[in-house]
Amino acid sequence: MANIDLQDDLTADAPVLSVRDEEGHLNHAFIQAVEATIDAEDAIGLLKLAGKLHEADTGDLIESLGEADRARFVRLLGDDFDYTALTETDEAVRLKLLETLPNEDIAEGLGDLDSDDAVYILEDMDAEDQAEILGELPYADRAQLQRALDYPESSAGRRMQTEFIAVAPFWTVGQTIDYMREARDLPDSFYEIYVVDPTFRLLGAVALDKVLRTTRDEKVTSIMTETRHAVLATEDQEEVARRFERYNLVSSAVVDENERLVGILTVDDIVDVIQEEAEEDLRALAGVGDEEISDSVLTIARSRLTWLVVNLGTAVLASIIIALFEDTIEAMVALAVLMPIVASMGGNAGTQTMTVAVRGIATQELGARNMLRVLRREVLVGFLNGLALAVLIGLTAWAWFQSPGLGIVIAGSIIINMLFAGLSGLLIPIALDKVNVDPAIASSVFVTTVTDVVGFFAFLGIAALWFGLPF
Amino acid sequence: MANIDLQDDLTADAPVLSVRDEEGHLNHAFIQAVEATIDAEDAIGLLKLAGKLHEADTGDLIESLGEADRARFVRLLGDDFDYTALTETDEAVRLKLLETLPNEDIAEGLGDLDSDDAVYILEDMDAEDQAEILGELPYADRAQLQRALDYPESSAGRRMQTEFIAVAPFWTVGQTIDYMREARDLPDSFYEIYVVDPTFRLLGAVALDKVLRTTRDEKVTSIMTETRHAVLATEDQEEVARRFERYNLVSSAVVDENERLVGILTVDDIVDVIQEEAEEDLRALAGVGDEEISDSVLTIARSRLTWLVVNLGTAVLASIIIALFEDTIEAMVALAVLMPIVASMGGNAGTQTMTVAVRGIATQELGARNMLRVLRREVLVGFLNGLALAVLIGLTAWAWFQSPGLGIVIAGSIIINMLFAGLSGLLIPIALDKVNVDPAIASSVFVTTVTDVVGFFAFLGIAALWFGLPF
Repeated sequence: MANIDLQDDLTADAPVLSVRDEEGHLNHAFIQAVEATIDAEDAIGLLKLAGKLHEADTGDLIESLGEADRARFVRLLGDDFDYTALTETDEAVRLKLLETLPNEDIAEGLGDLDSDDAVYILEDMDAEDQAEILGELPYADRAQLQRALDYPESSAGRRMQTEFIAVAPFWTVGQTIDYMREARDLPDSFYEIYVVDPTFRLLGAVALDKVLRTTRDEKVTSIMTETRHAVLATEDQEEVARRFERYNLVSSAVVDENERLVGILTVDDIVDVIQEEAEEDLRALAGVGDEEISDSVLTIARSRLTWLVVNLGTAVLASIIIALFEDTIEAMVALAVLMPIVASMGGNAGTQTMTVAVRGIATQELGARNMLRVLRREVLVGFLNGLALAVLIGLTAWAWFQSPGLGIVIAGSIIINMLFAGLSGLLIPIALDKVNVDPAIASSVFVTTVTDVVGFFAFLGIAALWFGLPF
Repeated sequence: MANIDLQDDLTADAPVLSVRDEEGHLNHAFIQAVEATIDAEDAIGLLKLAGKLHEADTGDLIESLGEADRARFVRLLGDDFDYTALTETDEAVRLKLLETLPNEDIAEGLGDLDSDDAVYILEDMDAEDQAEILGELPYADRAQLQRALDYPESSAGRRMQTEFIAVAPFWTVGQTIDYMREARDLPDSFYEIYVVDPTFRLLGAVALDKVLRTTRDEKVTSIMTETRHAVLATEDQEEVARRFERYNLVSSAVVDENERLVGILTVDDIVDVIQEEAEEDLRALAGVGDEEISDSVLTIARSRLTWLVVNLGTAVLASIIIALFEDTIEAMVALAVLMPIVASMGGNAGTQTMTVAVRGIATQELGARNMLRVLRREVLVGFLNGLALAVLIGLTAWAWFQSPGLGIVIAGSIIINMLFAGLSGLLIPIALDKVNVDPAIASSVFVTTVTDVVGFFAFLGIAALWFGLPF
């Protein structure tokens, strides 16, 4: 069942090829067949192979083709190419492909799309091309898209779809059904209809299943739910995503500052936002930006270098701490051997706490309400695990260097560093959030700095005191 | 608009309190008001305050209450308590609360729920309570829930809802609408109806908007889409989530091995899976399990300790490498000062590549198709950034220790380590995936080991050779 047999409804003269293999990757033989039709400029063959694909499959297919083949693929399919597929490719692939296509073709392709998809494709293009393409569109479409583009990036207004069904409060269910049977230019698919007053102010929403379960003579207002969760067009998409997730929404009305209905958001757009958000935190914590698998070497190298240089600062700071104890180390070189253990254990424990804290802040599970309890817990966890590790490492160091003193020194400094790791892992993200810096981006530099500095300082310092070494 | 005014439709004698503050956290005053009604055993007051909340708000409210108050909250609300709220709390909170409630009450509460929610609550309870609760339910409900519970954990069969609408292929749209108007025990909300043959084999799905847009005399088969993406009940939920996400599904039929329709999945269940999946990778990379913010100190300490002990192995291995060069360090203590820089830069760069690789594997963007290209890219990125960092660090070391040789040695070893970081950051996750080990869980230990070992070995080794030091 998991495999999709593309050829089900096509003529028998094309070979039967499934689009994806068991793992969900595009089938290699399928890609090759597509490439062969492109090379042969065989428009009919290509149409048979790839004309009826789901937009997501077409998007992946485009990414799998060589750069030159991508534009030829779009041209060969002509009017049968569904531009929605471009919403499913990486940004880099999309922009390069759009550059090679004539703006009139793009305008024609976008004209058929739901407004949210058209905006998604337009928003990253440069201003000149954008203006030219908008200029080619009929006035009504252009005005609609321009309005969405005027909302800030990543806002609900940018993501929303302006095709929706709105009815008057005095309508009956029967009238509504008749209207839907006749209306044209409806959205591709929808899950709710909306009730608005004469000034288009939003009164409520009616789920389609409610419409279907109700007799024709009932008023729509009798089955309407007041829209408690209407989204403001200027709201950030991440906030909207949180609301969708929290209240299990499938679609939501979008209103302007006068509470007038201007569009709708559906969960399929929001699913991407939800995934991106969790993934953004992951990338931010590791110091990689929003790079895509198809980005160029230079783009990626540059975006990652920033993070590495910032971390270089941390590393140099740690070295300065070590340099304070040069004489100590010279007197007892075993300290140089063992010191990275203390720093690295602290770093790992700090990262654990920090990860939990960063996600807790993002999902709003961590707040003023439970902060003290979590703080107490992190300190206790740090202490308990510090104790466990201290015993392990203390005995190891003792056995290795035949020095019980060294075991005690490293055990003590591990406990200290684990406590600092727990504290800084929790408090640094919270503090950054308070001053409106994204904790996912900035936390790990600070936490690592704390665990490195405390780790080296505690270990070398205690050792110098314990053994009476110079420093 | 973002705030929900809970009291809209309640009588005026209760104070107007909004449930959530601007940041989306539960309002402190609201929680206190709830606590006051609980303390006063004021069932009517509590019902007014919290009787009409969305299940997500009730779930958060339960988490915000003290442990003793949670059970009193449920008891005071009595039949008005919606057990769906328990699907919105942390597992630890849910299990503790369920322990304090009589099994008959739970059975009664679960009887009203959609089957997927009931299963979600039952699945983590211990076998004895589970059996007792199931025993209290009417036969039909019990059989349905038992069947879902017999599917493996995290499978589509566990997550699915067994309430759905299935019609025969010869039905018209009109018949279907009439049926829905009359039928009882329909799911709470639904977006598709399904067409099945007499043996309940799935033929296709019809979106509700299609039903509404079609005249009464049309056959349902004429507007049916063949369900290309039907889910097998035994499939893992992550695979299902990927399909929902890829094809922008809102709901999907679930079939058994004989292609018979057994249930449906809706996107609201899948949204949680999608978020969890991205978050799981984040947690796994940082070495924290699926701990929840309400877990106890001991649970958390134990689950994190495993990871720390594994990493201790890595740290000790790095120390052994350093120990090989004890004499070298004794002869030139500046090496001990600088060596953590080389290891830490490699570690950071390796983590960057590894994060991209782990997510690329999870989202299937990285595969055999583009592996060589990505490998080439990672090596180049490692080399370029290695070069940039080498210049920076080389000059720093030269200036700091007044030794151009030391600058050259550290620069060379940085470049070497950055190359290894890129290689291991990519190849280790891919290799782990090949042998069916979750790359998110195991990669970072191996990558850090490589960058630590290579970093210390290259730096100390080159230094020993360059300066002719003993080792």
